[in-house]
Amino acid sequence: MQAIENITYDELHLGDFATFTKTLTEQELVLFAAASGGLNPAAIDALNASEAIFEDGIGHGMWSGSLISAALSSVMPGAGSIQLEQHLKFKHEVKVGDTLTVKISVKEKLERQRVSFEVEVHNQEETLVAAGESLVVAPRKKIHFEAQDLPRIKIEC
Amino acid sequence: MQAIENITYDELHLGDFATFTKTLTEQELVLFAAASGGLNPAAIDALNASEAIFEDGIGHGMWSGSLISAALSSVMPGAGSIQLEQHLKFKHEVKVGDTLTVKISVKEKLERQRVSFEVEVHNQEETLVAAGESLVVAPRKKIHFEAQDLPRIKIEC
Repeated sequence: MQAIENITYDELHLGDFATFTKTLTEQELVLFAAASGGLNPAAIDALNASEAIFEDGIGHGMWSGSLISAALSSVMPGAGSIQLEQHLKFKHEVKVGDTLTVKISVKEKLERQRVSFEVEVHNQEETLVAAGESLVVAPRKKIHFEAQDLPRIKIEC
Repeated sequence: MQAIENITYDELHLGDFATFTKTLTEQELVLFAAASGGLNPAAIDALNASEAIFEDGIGHGMWSGSLISAALSSVMPGAGSIQLEQHLKFKHEVKVGDTLTVKISVKEKLERQRVSFEVEVHNQEETLVAAGESLVVAPRKKIHFEAQDLPRIKIEC
């Protein structure tokens, strides 16, 4: 159990930022593939194709994008947020074992609870792997709650 | 096992399109949360908060974005593609049980194997839930392979 509190529109100020860090394991690759209906990246990898493949290519988008959504929905502004737009440029490959840190910073407070966030994702070597902008409706009301742990997930090999 | 073939840069023509359809179940919600490190949306849902919560809000981004990456990496152009940019506007909520169809259409063929795709995501009621654009490096070489099934995943409740 984890005590969670969101950040309301009124509490957000220009330049405020939050970070969210996650190491990407082979388990996540498989879970992403299952959740999105994509191919099993491990199977593609096994081909040893000479061209860029999942881990060097499309993997970026799926991973970085979903870490950003996780950061917006879990950390800042957190519960009660609605993501309206996401613009992302992928700058560098992401590999199994990389630890990504998403930094979201308040860039502009707009009308009707809308907030524009600057987004940067760096790996453990401080290399920028993705950058862009998120437009979000920030929550009006404060929400406190205890987050329950996720169910246990077993991947049968 | 599933026979897979990618679509090379030379084989892509203006207006060519592909679709990718997936029904979003509670299992995917949990897998996404586990893979991205976000909160357990079911736990948040249980709060019955009056404001928009995971399923009505941030869920869009995570789901639609990753279906688009799956479509680009698995269908068109498929294996060997590299996603460079993703721009998305979220237009309508996505709920557990919704069946989303991603349509990716060749909008422009650019230099250095770059291809811009128009992206639209509709639900089972033909409502547009997300729209945007993907910039991709399309593969130069044809790749044929047999995709292996994903390992079995068990969620322990």
